[in-house]
Amino acid sequence: MPFLEDIKVGHRRELGTFTFTADNIKTFAREFDPQPFHLDEEAGRNSLFGGLAASGWHVASVCMKLIVAEGVRARAEAEARGEEIATGGPSPGFRDLRWIKPVLAGDTLTYTSEIESVRATASRPGWGIVHSRNVAVNQRGEEVYSFLGSVFMPQRGERR
Amino acid sequence: MPFLEDIKVGHRRELGTFTFTADNIKTFAREFDPQPFHLDEEAGRNSLFGGLAASGWHVASVCMKLIVAEGVRARAEAEARGEEIATGGPSPGFRDLRWIKPVLAGDTLTYTSEIESVRATASRPGWGIVHSRNVAVNQRGEEVYSFLGSVFMPQRGERR
Repeated sequence: MPFLEDIKVGHRRELGTFTFTADNIKTFAREFDPQPFHLDEEAGRNSLFGGLAASGWHVASVCMKLIVAEGVRARAEAEARGEEIATGGPSPGFRDLRWIKPVLAGDTLTYTSEIESVRATASRPGWGIVHSRNVAVNQRGEEVYSFLGSVFMPQRGERR
Repeated sequence: MPFLEDIKVGHRRELGTFTFTADNIKTFAREFDPQPFHLDEEAGRNSLFGGLAASGWHVASVCMKLIVAEGVRARAEAEARGEEIATGGPSPGFRDLRWIKPVLAGDTLTYTSEIESVRATASRPGWGIVHSRNVAVNQRGEEVYSFLGSVFMPQRGERR
């Protein structure tokens, strides 16, 4: 994790890919979103989605899974380079989450994250807030999911 | 599910309660958000959260679970009264999701939903869009989670 001063607007990182299967769609839906079009192929085909569709919250939770995995990789790489590593703070929330197109069984999404803004926070001296636009694109190149995430990150200056 | 014309701004419904336990917090986190403060009591105590904390995406997914369960109950009640029932459309996304305070192991949240706006959509004749403010409060009455959800609902007039 870089410090606030090291985070550049426009920096884009690929978070990874995930394939939604009938099995993982139904497993998530049974616990958190048991609507017919998330549980049953025929109900999905007869719905506006046109097929067995992943819960939007499943699509969102997988994004978090990939953000964490990318963070672990980035941290290992920074450690290997001998860089000082910042520990990020909590996320206060996010804005403008969009489920743009259905995610159907068999779809593979590629998630990316791009830094949209970086600023120091008046309310938390020594910290700043980073906004990132997180996006998922399916195997046909169609954008299916997007949200503007926020996370607190420490400033390097205050820690030294 | 009522039709668009039957949905009133300010109408508030209790969605239900859910207790976050060390076990369900860790189970969700292992699959979708494997950060130390979501997986380990001591790491949680040493974090800004001050205890084993639920993933924000877990708090959000439980809200969806309770929204679906409430919808099933409301539908059964409407059927029992012999009312015509509308089938809701998809959610295009939502705005302003806020994780306001940590949700720790042992916390019980009560989720409610209040209609914030109802309007016909120019882009989808026969439909409208409903915005609801969904909120979770813990056992001390503190608001911990909030988002402004959106869902397409059919108009009664167009279906007759």
